Amino acid sequence: MRTAIADNYPTRGRTVCSSTTRRDPAVWGDATSGPLSQSEVAEYDRRGYHRTESLVPTADVFHLVDEMSRLAADEDLRDDECVVREHGTGDVRSVFDVHLLSPVVDEIVRRPEIADMARQILGSDVYIHQSRLNYKPGFTGGPFYWHSDFETWHAEDGMPAPRAASISIALTENYGYNGGLMIMPGSHREWVSCAGETPENYYRESLVTGTPPTGSPDQATLTSMANKYGIDMMTGSSGSAFLFDSNAIHGSNGNITPFPRSNLFIVFNSVENTLVEPFSAPSPRPTYLGSRDFSPLR
Amino acid sequence: MRTAIADNYPTRGRTVCSSTTRRDPAVWGDATSGPLSQSEVAEYDRRGYHRTESLVPTADVFHLVDEMSRLAADEDLRDDECVVREHGTGDVRSVFDVHLLSPVVDEIVRRPEIADMARQILGSDVYIHQSRLNYKPGFTGGPFYWHSDFETWHAEDGMPAPRAASISIALTENYGYNGGLMIMPGSHREWVSCAGETPENYYRESLVTGTPPTGSPDQATLTSMANKYGIDMMTGSSGSAFLFDSNAIHGSNGNITPFPRSNLFIVFNSVENTLVEPFSAPSPRPTYLGSRDFSPLR
Repeated sequence: MRTAIADNYPTRGRTVCSSTTRRDPAVWGDATSGPLSQSEVAEYDRRGYHRTESLVPTADVFHLVDEMSRLAADEDLRDDECVVREHGTGDVRSVFDVHLLSPVVDEIVRRPEIADMARQILGSDVYIHQSRLNYKPGFTGGPFYWHSDFETWHAEDGMPAPRAASISIALTENYGYNGGLMIMPGSHREWVSCAGETPENYYRESLVTGTPPTGSPDQATLTSMANKYGIDMMTGSSGSAFLFDSNAIHGSNGNITPFPRSNLFIVFNSVENTLVEPFSAPSPRPTYLGSRDFSPLR
Repeated sequence: MRTAIADNYPTRGRTVCSSTTRRDPAVWGDATSGPLSQSEVAEYDRRGYHRTESLVPTADVFHLVDEMSRLAADEDLRDDECVVREHGTGDVRSVFDVHLLSPVVDEIVRRPEIADMARQILGSDVYIHQSRLNYKPGFTGGPFYWHSDFETWHAEDGMPAPRAASISIALTENYGYNGGLMIMPGSHREWVSCAGETPENYYRESLVTGTPPTGSPDQATLTSMANKYGIDMMTGSSGSAFLFDSNAIHGSNGNITPFPRSNLFIVFNSVENTLVEPFSAPSPRPTYLGSRDFSPLR
């Protein structure tokens, strides 16, 4: 079940990890019109991310937190795969497809200050590849190991090129010590082919444990990249947001502090980069992880 | 096997956690002479810690790192309890009694810029209650849950009062994202009586797992304290140091970054606060955890 189109980003099915320069740009099109200034676009190109303070007003942050609680308690979704729970406690860790399940989320993600930023960077119309509300509790929040999202989306969902960007909107303060996102600035320009095979239905395991060995660069590669690029912490108040390149290497530590961490996470993919068959997995992941509805967002 | 002297800091052997204001001062004596200025002493009194940049020169940091490697590989110490290893990998996580095992450490801890700081805060001569070199590896470094050191030293070692201070000297850079120390500034003035009993030989478990439920405040208390005091991260270059009060609530997150974190940790106790029998444990911990040699440091 392999695709016929060229695989410019081979990964998995190999015994060692290797790096090359990424073939495609991070900023597509001319990027002259949109919410970002030209210097902000240039910085996104260089670092692989852009930070916006107060992107979502406080009242909407409250609405989003309420939506998370409502969806987590929704009886109709109790056994739905789009609700991911912690092993042991059964507490809800993520709810996927929130742009379809929640009118509040649906309205917010279409706002020009959000969707136009993605269109500007990706140089085309966009659609939503994935959406989720995440909740990392205080005291017991687990780590999420280093990875490139695009590596997974390419291997397991069939996304041809890294012409996608994610926005993470903070619903609680990210202090730097409560398990926030860490990113290696500049790492998005490097393509790391990862070792290992993709097990059948691997997503069920990798979403919960948070430490996927398959699809993550090995320790030698991560050490070399951390020394080369350094690590930036994505700190900020609730309502602030990070837009970041799909191929940026990122991860997060666990959280023993009492302060939980929640965010709304939306992946925009270019309508010129729609999914084909997975490049390194037996079958595509479910659509709540990799949407097959490629209608442009309006 | 209980002591006859008054227990001003009751803890454990109870079902709920409770807080009171600490009876004793954090700064003892007149504290007018020593390495710290009067404003630094006042800030230590208020926050429960003092930070010094470049306390140990770089050459000595290298010597201390070498000592850690030498002691970790020492065949004579292979089965010694003072070498604490990770479950699973067997990698060395801590070496205790390093002021006795290493002439390098012994010389450094006696330096006036280090020992006099402890004498100034504690208002008397001091001796070393505990010393250790710690190594928290990159990628897999585990968390260390919130606790007051004095709570353990009182309950399990028989230290009468919180007239002790610890110095943590960084041997690698503490970035804020590689599992460094977090402290609740001001928490040292509050005494938290913790719930639960002390199991026999509890130290063997608590030193390795890093998440001791016994001897830690409960989640409601920690949440209230974190909201009241906030959390400070102990970041700094190698060679920088933190002196902190024995009763300050502190902990550390795990570390998925490639950057390991090592430090030299020395506990100074006042010679007027020497150990008696444990206040809440069947028998005292071994002397590498709570020394019974009370000779003043010279």
